Amino acid sequence: MPTLEQARAWYPARDPIHGFDHVERVYRTAERLALEEGADLEIVRAAALLHDVQGAEPEGEHRADHHEQSARIAAEVLAAEGWPPDRIAAVQECIRAHRFRVGVENPSLEARILFDADKLDVLGAVGVARTIAYAVLAGQPHYHPPSERFLTTGEKEPGEPHSAYHEYLFKLRKVKDRLFTASARRIAERRHADLVAYFEALAAEMEGRQ
Amino acid sequence: MPTLEQARAWYPARDPIHGFDHVERVYRTAERLALEEGADLEIVRAAALLHDVQGAEPEGEHRADHHEQSARIAAEVLAAEGWPPDRIAAVQECIRAHRFRVGVENPSLEARILFDADKLDVLGAVGVARTIAYAVLAGQPHYHPPSERFLTTGEKEPGEPHSAYHEYLFKLRKVKDRLFTASARRIAERRHADLVAYFEALAAEMEGRQ
Repeated sequence: MPTLEQARAWYPARDPIHGFDHVERVYRTAERLALEEGADLEIVRAAALLHDVQGAEPEGEHRADHHEQSARIAAEVLAAEGWPPDRIAAVQECIRAHRFRVGVENPSLEARILFDADKLDVLGAVGVARTIAYAVLAGQPHYHPPSERFLTTGEKEPGEPHSAYHEYLFKLRKVKDRLFTASARRIAERRHADLVAYFEALAAEMEGRQ
Repeated sequence: MPTLEQARAWYPARDPIHGFDHVERVYRTAERLALEEGADLEIVRAAALLHDVQGAEPEGEHRADHHEQSARIAAEVLAAEGWPPDRIAAVQECIRAHRFRVGVENPSLEARILFDADKLDVLGAVGVARTIAYAVLAGQPHYHPPSERFLTTGEKEPGEPHSAYHEYLFKLRKVKDRLFTASARRIAERRHADLVAYFEALAAEMEGRQ
């Protein structure tokens, strides 16, 4: 079983979005969900440690298929530790299924838990900080007034920049409705409320209303 | 009188901390405070447009005396527009006095207004975004547990990193008590509450309490 200390070496320390401290939070949250939901703790822990091991940096060339790359590396790491093939496959299923845009049919309980733990880390004050950090590093503004077109279709007008606020509208505010487990939904209540409060305050201040 | 459109060319568009959109917000806020407080609108506007014109970038070599440099450039800009020396001096006083750590004795109403407008921009959701952006660009974490020593003296233990949360504890949460004008204090109430709510949620999430 790989440990949190081992995993520290696999991730960039200073990446404010997908660095080791994201992995550490996902690991702790996934552990908590696994205990509450009665999941296989060893599978969940290994999957959490390895879920972003390849290509998690936002502009990285592997970003689009980082879940596949990470699943491949996970298999190598666990095989080297003597894990049996069926349990390696169970970890790989979790890692493949954690990506927001990838639909996996009937994911295992452990896969649902990794997905939820990863998504809880884009909500709340931590989610706000990571979203702002992403925008800063991508050269995007915190806020730009969303066009009517973006509000209704999710598609931007020509020349309309993406902003942290756009990311909130398009993705973050919907995350809580995508969670699988009741345990995660309980944790999400407060974090979703804090996320919404933050971005609504940002819009109000930027528009001179507050 | 220099205009907002002129000022756009003097500031980096993409600086998420002291770029043009900070200047634009300070200009709007200062204008509002000047109207409410009965200040000289032309002095306040010119001072707001020119207050960070030199060396506002956080790691810039001029950061420590950016208020002096900006005051010098302001005098050149306004003299070229034919402003009389006493009114140029009034704008310079505002710019010199806006820096948080510089005490100016008996600042003018216009200087108090620029100070307040600039400080209101480190509170609220905008202040959170700017503080997170500063930490990201400086390679600092969003959060690191503050030491007992930092909490009691404001000095860090050897090896203790600065974080956005440290900045909140050391400086941001005290800003509202430094404001001069009643109009600014009214605007600060909500923004201070939002700032505190955000950073307390960040600490709670990072410590696994929320």
